[in-house]
Amino acid sequence: MGRDESPTNSPAQAGHLRTRWAELHLRLLDRLRLEFRATPPFTGLTIGICLHIEPKTAVLCSVLLEGGAEVILTGSPGTTQDDVAAALQETGVKVFSRKRDDATAHLKNIRRVLEFDPHLLLDNGADLIATLLEARGTHRVVGATEETTTGGNRLREQLRDRVPFPVIVINDSPLKLIMENEHGVGPTVVEAFMRATNLLVPSRRYVVFGYGSVGRGIARCLRALGGHVSVVEPDPIRALEAALDGMLVTDMEDALANSEVFFTATGRPGVITGERIARLPDGAVLANAGHFSWEIDIAELKRQAKKAEALSAGVDLFTLQDGRRVALLAGGEMLNLAGGGGNPIETMDLGLALQAQSLRRLAESHKLLPAGAQPVPHDINLSVARAMVEELSRH
Amino acid sequence: MGRDESPTNSPAQAGHLRTRWAELHLRLLDRLRLEFRATPPFTGLTIGICLHIEPKTAVLCSVLLEGGAEVILTGSPGTTQDDVAAALQETGVKVFSRKRDDATAHLKNIRRVLEFDPHLLLDNGADLIATLLEARGTHRVVGATEETTTGGNRLREQLRDRVPFPVIVINDSPLKLIMENEHGVGPTVVEAFMRATNLLVPSRRYVVFGYGSVGRGIARCLRALGGHVSVVEPDPIRALEAALDGMLVTDMEDALANSEVFFTATGRPGVITGERIARLPDGAVLANAGHFSWEIDIAELKRQAKKAEALSAGVDLFTLQDGRRVALLAGGEMLNLAGGGGNPIETMDLGLALQAQSLRRLAESHKLLPAGAQPVPHDINLSVARAMVEELSRH
Amino acid sequence: MGRDESPTNSPAQAGHLRTRWAELHLRLLDRLRLEFRATPPFTGLTIGICLHIEPKTAVLCSVLLEGGAEVILTGSPGTTQDDVAAALQETGVKVFSRKRDDATAHLKNIRRVLEFDPHLLLDNGADLIATLLEARGTHRVVGATEETTTGGNRLREQLRDRVPFPVIVINDSPLKLIMENEHGVGPTVVEAFMRATNLLVPSRRYVVFGYGSVGRGIARCLRALGGHVSVVEPDPIRALEAALDGMLVTDMEDALANSEVFFTATGRPGVITGERIARLPDGAVLANAGHFSWEIDIAELKRQAKKAEALSAGVDLFTLQDGRRVALLAGGEMLNLAGGGGNPIETMDLGLALQAQSLRRLAESHKLLPAGAQPVPHDINLSVARAMVEELSRH
Amino acid sequence: MGRDESPTNSPAQAGHLRTRWAELHLRLLDRLRLEFRATPPFTGLTIGICLHIEPKTAVLCSVLLEGGAEVILTGSPGTTQDDVAAALQETGVKVFSRKRDDATAHLKNIRRVLEFDPHLLLDNGADLIATLLEARGTHRVVGATEETTTGGNRLREQLRDRVPFPVIVINDSPLKLIMENEHGVGPTVVEAFMRATNLLVPSRRYVVFGYGSVGRGIARCLRALGGHVSVVEPDPIRALEAALDGMLVTDMEDALANSEVFFTATGRPGVITGERIARLPDGAVLANAGHFSWEIDIAELKRQAKKAEALSAGVDLFTLQDGRRVALLAGGEMLNLAGGGGNPIETMDLGLALQAQSLRRLAESHKLLPAGAQPVPHDINLSVARAMVEELSRH
Repeated sequence: MGRDESPTNSPAQAGHLRTRWAELHLRLLDRLRLEFRATPPFTGLTIGICLHIEPKTAVLCSVLLEGGAEVILTGSPGTTQDDVAAALQETGVKVFSRKRDDATAHLKNIRRVLEFDPHLLLDNGADLIATLLEARGTHRVVGATEETTTGGNRLREQLRDRVPFPVIVINDSPLKLIMENEHGVGPTVVEAFMRATNLLVPSRRYVVFGYGSVGRGIARCLRALGGHVSVVEPDPIRALEAALDGMLVTDMEDALANSEVFFTATGRPGVITGERIARLPDGAVLANAGHFSWEIDIAELKRQAKKAEALSAGVDLFTLQDGRRVALLAGGEMLNLAGGGGNPIETMDLGLALQAQSLRRLAESHKLLPAGAQPVPHDINLSVARAMVEELSRH
Repeated sequence: MGRDESPTNSPAQAGHLRTRWAELHLRLLDRLRLEFRATPPFTGLTIGICLHIEPKTAVLCSVLLEGGAEVILTGSPGTTQDDVAAALQETGVKVFSRKRDDATAHLKNIRRVLEFDPHLLLDNGADLIATLLEARGTHRVVGATEETTTGGNRLREQLRDRVPFPVIVINDSPLKLIMENEHGVGPTVVEAFMRATNLLVPSRRYVVFGYGSVGRGIARCLRALGGHVSVVEPDPIRALEAALDGMLVTDMEDALANSEVFFTATGRPGVITGERIARLPDGAVLANAGHFSWEIDIAELKRQAKKAEALSAGVDLFTLQDGRRVALLAGGEMLNLAGGGGNPIETMDLGLALQAQSLRRLAESHKLLPAGAQPVPHDINLSVARAMVEELSRH
Repeated sequence: MGRDESPTNSPAQAGHLRTRWAELHLRLLDRLRLEFRATPPFTGLTIGICLHIEPKTAVLCSVLLEGGAEVILTGSPGTTQDDVAAALQETGVKVFSRKRDDATAHLKNIRRVLEFDPHLLLDNGADLIATLLEARGTHRVVGATEETTTGGNRLREQLRDRVPFPVIVINDSPLKLIMENEHGVGPTVVEAFMRATNLLVPSRRYVVFGYGSVGRGIARCLRALGGHVSVVEPDPIRALEAALDGMLVTDMEDALANSEVFFTATGRPGVITGERIARLPDGAVLANAGHFSWEIDIAELKRQAKKAEALSAGVDLFTLQDGRRVALLAGGEMLNLAGGGGNPIETMDLGLALQAQSLRRLAESHKLLPAGAQPVPHDINLSVARAMVEELSRH
Repeated sequence: MGRDESPTNSPAQAGHLRTRWAELHLRLLDRLRLEFRATPPFTGLTIGICLHIEPKTAVLCSVLLEGGAEVILTGSPGTTQDDVAAALQETGVKVFSRKRDDATAHLKNIRRVLEFDPHLLLDNGADLIATLLEARGTHRVVGATEETTTGGNRLREQLRDRVPFPVIVINDSPLKLIMENEHGVGPTVVEAFMRATNLLVPSRRYVVFGYGSVGRGIARCLRALGGHVSVVEPDPIRALEAALDGMLVTDMEDALANSEVFFTATGRPGVITGERIARLPDGAVLANAGHFSWEIDIAELKRQAKKAEALSAGVDLFTLQDGRRVALLAGGEMLNLAGGGGNPIETMDLGLALQAQSLRRLAESHKLLPAGAQPVPHDINLSVARAMVEELSRH
């Protein structure tokens, strides 16, 4: 039989199909599925979840179901994949989210999740927890996990001393830094650059702003593929690493004058400012690999341009007053997400396995953990790293 | 101004926009544009062209126009991009081709091109030349170029001794082997693999069948990105190169037993046969990087499968009788074309510059060249290589 | 003029000549020489030094002299290069050390250095400090630096609470870890392997025990040169890094069965034990890259051998009872030192610049620093890193 | 037992010991030894050999002995290792050569070899053949091999039409180009650079003159280790390869101004001329990787210097009139031979296996081969390549 013989699929069918591929390669979640089936940690427990609704998170939900949980799910505004949501509904997860939801609808969804009076929360940006605390009502939450650093900061700053249960912040795990940033984001940013531009990688001059783990991942990948890579990095110790890794460490002045493709990966705003846009060479290509789209001053780029052309889905070409042309990839959004397929499945597997194991720990031992934001327990880091090494060595 | 403010474009406008990006990076064609403007080689000459109609070939047409030529163009069935055709019409090129044309319509288009009684032909698969010779009528063609090796073989075999004018076969140039196969096809196949599968590249076991220039390009790219790469290559001299390049040279038996991702790049049929499909490990991923889709026996794969699922645009998952799952990328078509953006613009630039320079040589000196198929004159190879090195060093 | 016209040199002349090359490439010391000349920090101060006497340390002494210091120097038993010592004597340094000195003579030398009643000490293994404390007499030492981690541990353990002045432990600096271990030791171990064995690097199977910074440096270098590299590393987080860097992470069993060349870099004893020697394949090559020669059980190797042949300066071949042959490089001593030229000059420059800047800090601000062992002040790390990046970018 | 317990060795014992290591790793010769033992091809035949006398050639002689040959050997002036010669004598080879022999003694040795009236010759630089032809007497030579390209050229030019028997020129084999030049010479030149200078490889600016197989080997190795590599190459097709391999293709002007370390690998004289020496930057390091020492104009370098210092065995430092300092490695001789251990054993194995197989072919089928210089028969190339791939895959 062949693919072209398939009848047209319903949304739920399409969602199931698209989840299949992720399922095959989320090996750590698959191990946990077997463990949870043998010894269900969540029997009688309700888990309230706020997370982007896409194939990989769908697999996490199915693993939690296997562990005996009732799962109530909402997503983030604009990122919900409706076919995946439909497929999840069919498996028994309660889903309150649609792609077209706005901020108001999102808040309503958050509240509907909390109405199920969950025992555990899996939060994203601390939205569930903050709403819960505002309500000040009685609740039976014994613990939560938080996916993002942003949510972790919110918990440690604005919500400090107000959270009466332990919250394990997943993104603080050193594993994520190693596997997701350097080896996940780095190469997929380069892939998305190739996809958007169709340009030859070797013998081009690139500059990478920032030599943290994302910047290092991009720079090493470009160099491995034959590029000439300069790095601008104010921290001299990181700059020394860059130099020893074979990068040309240079200053902003040189970088602007002698490069063609510019990647920002500093995590800070204002890297390619209006003043620097004014000094870019003709033909410059700008791409952002940082989490926020603030590293390139896009408003300023538009202001300086006398002409803007959307050449393709991922490439905007701006012609500046003096005739120089500057291309912006993926609208300045994080290139591997906005212009590519996102992080590799295996790096997501690592993060989701940290989630599932942390939720199990909370279900089993929340009384042993202090209240408030805290890192992933070290034994969970070790166990997840060990399992990942075993899976990677199996290939 | 921003991209989202653009009004909806007409097909011709869309075609112009999409051609802009290619135009910026087809540097050798840009050089030739200036030369042709200064000294037009084609004044009073009509050039009949058969070539895939897409942005990069559109730029070639505009350069030939600049050289004084009247340009009559047809494409290949199924690959014509109608917006680019519409844009070309506006620039004065006469275009006879639509995406939906079938073989009959294509033949009709070929004949309409020949009705303009061209002086020079740029052929693809020797379609124009064969039709011209069949007509046996008088014509004023003084020379032609042929894009493909397949067309070159047709000229050297079936049409041997029948072509009364010189035909320069572009694809025989050693430059194309170096730049297009190893550095063009190789990395874009890996990029398309990442795009289709969203899998992590390092720490996976790959096997590449064939260590010619395409296979070497794929293998080196995978290894540079952290993969474990085995090579199956019957020619011991090429196998020795693979071993010294850091690949594990192995036999078919070992390759099937110990790999996860399989790339065919032999240029020959029957690499992954039915008998070998029967020995693939669970989770095997099959991809073809050869010109034809005959290297993997797809019919046999479908026959052995009890279930076939089209998981996404580029991934079909087959479940074999014994439960093993095998994924096929891009339906077994050449992965970087069918599942990616094709060769990098610069490698196309090289080939199109060889075309434009060869057409100029034919216009100026066709009497000095022998009749029949022949390689690109060596001085043109040198001149194009020199220009490309200069452009690559400019970045 | 040519080298062969040179008359035979005196030892001091030979020492001067050999120091010249180091001097040209110790760029950070050269910068400090200019700073010290402009503003001598050590006027009226005596510095007592215990350090290997070879060209690079000779340059450090000359820089301290330039800073106004009186310098009294002793070396380590067995490593003193007598020609360099003779050359240093000529420049005004007082040197008490000869290559043939034994432990007793060394202790006597230590005491003679202390007899000069130094204000500052540069110590190696805490020999000067321990001897000073034993004497319990009055002394005028206001601060010291300690080169090694071993010395640092001795100060933090046995001598804890007994040292009345600040001691800056140079080897604790993160800069040294990055530059010396990964980029200094790693590649020079591979170079010394090539030198000792004259074997081809690509297409060989290596195993590296330990994926700390030394192990990583060796593994990356071997892989970059085309080797197949396995890593044995019990810490799962380091093992994950190795896997993502393209290494085969394997267990001891597999490593012994499937490798040919074995590098130990764990920093711990008992890696290649007698039991494991018994399972090595015929033709195994053993090399140690750790600081001590305890990682390979050499006594056991000799015991199991029925024949031992010193094939060349750096290669001993042992034939075991069952006929298997095992080669040991550099007698199991740290390969890049015992069988090569040691760390690259620039990595020594980094460490010696940390020494010189720390001694200046002690001269100027010892009262602001706490007593006892402490890390290099962060601003000195930053300043040295910055200077090194500038020098590396100058090339 | 340990190496230090060994009694002092006689020269022959030392020669045997030093040959042991080569013997273990000359795997193709070992295979031929078994074949020759089973079916001796040289029974009753005398082979006259002229070849550098060192451990690897000693193993070849022992293999020929095993094949039934009587072996008469001489070396080249200055390169004979007397201990290896003594060891060979003990095995039955007749050796006429000592290290201290001059050109006159060498010619005498050549004649003594010929006095044994050999049936086959293994020649080096065509010395044996030329002397034989001069003698014009009757002889019973039925065929010969020639090791070098230089000897091959002499046979094809000066001695053209005068050689009445087939001469197989080993160095013309494509295998040697791949394995010896790119993967043998390239990395060992880099190793010898590290050995001579003790400098850090990454983050330095290198230029390689010539991008033939030796130049490519050096450039790729330096880049893999983190260097910034420029290439000067007049042939635009090779230059294009360099650019695509990630090298900066540059012109002589730029190369002189912006590099620190200069490798010549063009095979032609006059690369670094006096005029160019005058433009070298202060601190330049010059190294030659070509066969002859004519690529750097050493006489001119000495002429322009006001001071020359032999800093160490492999480094001469010249101070030019204006104070710039230029270092010359290994006196401008081929760096990996004069300043290192020469090509890896396995690359020698390849060449010696081609020798042994060609001699067998001549013994068995000389009548089927034409007279005069000719390449290695293709089936021998294939067989040697196949065997080498098998051995490399065994590690």
